[in-house]
Amino acid sequence: MEQDPGFIAAVEEAKQGLSEGGVPIGAALVSKDGKILGRGHNMRVQKGSAVLHAEMSALENSGRLPASAYEGATMYTTLSPCDMCTGACILYKVKRVVIGENKNFMGGEELLLNKGKEVVVLDNAECKEFMTNFMNEKPELWNEDIAV
Amino acid sequence: MEQDPGFIAAVEEAKQGLSEGGVPIGAALVSKDGKILGRGHNMRVQKGSAVLHAEMSALENSGRLPASAYEGATMYTTLSPCDMCTGACILYKVKRVVIGENKNFMGGEELLLNKGKEVVVLDNAECKEFMTNFMNEKPELWNEDIAV
Repeated sequence: MEQDPGFIAAVEEAKQGLSEGGVPIGAALVSKDGKILGRGHNMRVQKGSAVLHAEMSALENSGRLPASAYEGATMYTTLSPCDMCTGACILYKVKRVVIGENKNFMGGEELLLNKGKEVVVLDNAECKEFMTNFMNEKPELWNEDIAV
Repeated sequence: MEQDPGFIAAVEEAKQGLSEGGVPIGAALVSKDGKILGRGHNMRVQKGSAVLHAEMSALENSGRLPASAYEGATMYTTLSPCDMCTGACILYKVKRVVIGENKNFMGGEELLLNKGKEVVVLDNAECKEFMTNFMNEKPELWNEDIAV
């Protein structure tokens, strides 16, 4: 699953965010037939945005779609989704959430499971590494993003 | 509480959304000392946005803030918050959510209560009226917005 185009896109997005001086979290929304509907990364620094976490950016960049477009979809994300992004996945009824890692942050996985979502945690070494480095280098930015 | 500046602002925002041909839901985020940090309305039609529900617009328009800015804050919204907006209120640790009405749509109030939030439902006649009218007039738009 680490070779899925959606996961590769999510990791690319996280790296793009890092190169922009932002929070290095990326995501991609993939339809049931394997099409990347949208991809994006956290835009707190780049746009001063409080809502454009990676998963939200992927949803936003997917554009305005009917509910049917999300049926059977997978949200790929490099980090376990926070409460907001968890809620967005529930609202749009994605079927599956594939998560790069949850060692640096554990989000709403339990709620996703309770809502009948498939949750896959890859424990991906690269995702862990750039998140660990970021949290060590810019703890104040990370705390701001996750509101602690 | 229907005379709170935050609630008045939320209703004004909903009306603004309606006048723009959009989904007539408004919100305002108010700090513990009564300052309106941000206000906004649903932007699905206006910006083709999948993430800018009213509460999300209010958060976005509040700008990039440290976690301390949300302490003790109240989110005023004209309609019971969907799963995404519920999650956003949990992420940013607002203390209280004041809801215009939940007859036309019941969102994540139980989760908010489980997370220790104060939830106040005003059952406001005006909020109910413009939401009922909107749902009757544009059911396809409402279904799209709430992903059914």
